[in-house]
Amino acid sequence: MVSKNELKILTSLYQKKYRDKHGLFLVEGRKTIEEFLNSSYSCRQIYVANIEKNAFPKELISHLSINDLKKISNLKHTSGHIGVFELPNDQVMIEQDIKIVLDHIQDPGNLGTIIRLCDWFGIEQLICSKDTVDCYNPKVVQASMGSLSRVKVLYVDIEEFINDRQEEIVSMLLNGENIYQTTLPKKAVYIIGNESNGIRPSLVEKTKLPLTIPQFSKHQKVESLNAATATSILLSELMRK
Amino acid sequence: MVSKNELKILTSLYQKKYRDKHGLFLVEGRKTIEEFLNSSYSCRQIYVANIEKNAFPKELISHLSINDLKKISNLKHTSGHIGVFELPNDQVMIEQDIKIVLDHIQDPGNLGTIIRLCDWFGIEQLICSKDTVDCYNPKVVQASMGSLSRVKVLYVDIEEFINDRQEEIVSMLLNGENIYQTTLPKKAVYIIGNESNGIRPSLVEKTKLPLTIPQFSKHQKVESLNAATATSILLSELMRK
Repeated sequence: MVSKNELKILTSLYQKKYRDKHGLFLVEGRKTIEEFLNSSYSCRQIYVANIEKNAFPKELISHLSINDLKKISNLKHTSGHIGVFELPNDQVMIEQDIKIVLDHIQDPGNLGTIIRLCDWFGIEQLICSKDTVDCYNPKVVQASMGSLSRVKVLYVDIEEFINDRQEEIVSMLLNGENIYQTTLPKKAVYIIGNESNGIRPSLVEKTKLPLTIPQFSKHQKVESLNAATATSILLSELMRK
Repeated sequence: MVSKNELKILTSLYQKKYRDKHGLFLVEGRKTIEEFLNSSYSCRQIYVANIEKNAFPKELISHLSINDLKKISNLKHTSGHIGVFELPNDQVMIEQDIKIVLDHIQDPGNLGTIIRLCDWFGIEQLICSKDTVDCYNPKVVQASMGSLSRVKVLYVDIEEFINDRQEEIVSMLLNGENIYQTTLPKKAVYIIGNESNGIRPSLVEKTKLPLTIPQFSKHQKVESLNAATATSILLSELMRK
């Protein structure tokens, strides 16, 4: 049986301060839990509504009524499986020639999609400003579709980080060089900015190469591209030969 | 004053059957409403919480208390402006060399993002299977960021539509030609499939050119790309020179 206190802790993990306090985060869905079990993350417990129908390690499984599971679930239709994993302690920079940096991305769906894109395009680590949404937010975990189990996310003081870099700083801006007509450096830091405000001025100042995805519409009014779709086009251009 | 009955109709517009019944849909946010006012759509009414602070045509404005507006709003933080527009009658095909076709896209955020992408990349009309989410769903309107006021969305019997086409049928699949190493036809129908199940078999059968965005990860387990990010890479490849 799962105690009321345990349930309270589980629902509290929707908030970053309680994730940090307990050192835990939630992963939903059978397949995504399996991906986290096969990763460097440690699993604390797996709550399932139906004990018979799963292949998880027995010592990790707890039974939870479907009604209690729905209370914890982030989804409209829960799959009946919620895993509790430990937050990682290691916050080490991975040396990769191409570094993708997010400045103040706020939408959990965007961050999750960008983590999934990094996974697809072989970017092992994503670097985020401290004011970017937390990658262990259940909506980010959901949108990343298991990719968070493979892509490391490092939160840094972004101005300090950029100041310390030796590589070329490339920023995705609205008035830069045409991305399709520019040779993209293969060893560089690429910055993608906030959904509404773009990249903060102090980082724009440090930019050596400003890059733009040109607009092909005959209309003048088109909004900037969504942060995740801009990232997908940037990664595509970096990886295509 | 706005009557209870009027409020009831407004909130009913979250459901497709009531949008169809009343021939109306909702647009939120000052800037997006302005874009729809400058388009071919007819505005029925604009509800505002604060009459003084706006530049909308006076004859269209109704005052609504902020509490009533919150009841209608789709957003966590309403801007205090909701427009009611008429559904278009014209369902005419626009002849464009490149036709983008969606097969059973279910997520409103994905459809909205794809409409925004079409706007950016100069695709004037998006063609959707009848089981694709309705483009006048408030979440789609929101995610399209005003682009729905410019990009026409046509819902068709997709099998009939594909059968009738003379152009080459190109499908985004998991086991097709490498998109980066293939000459993409400039007069063709490009199909993007459902988030979980891809393109329906009857359309795959009609495909002349199966296309794939290759994966660059060393991991084997990466899920397929999100439908909207796959579309962004496809459009980017089509438009770049």
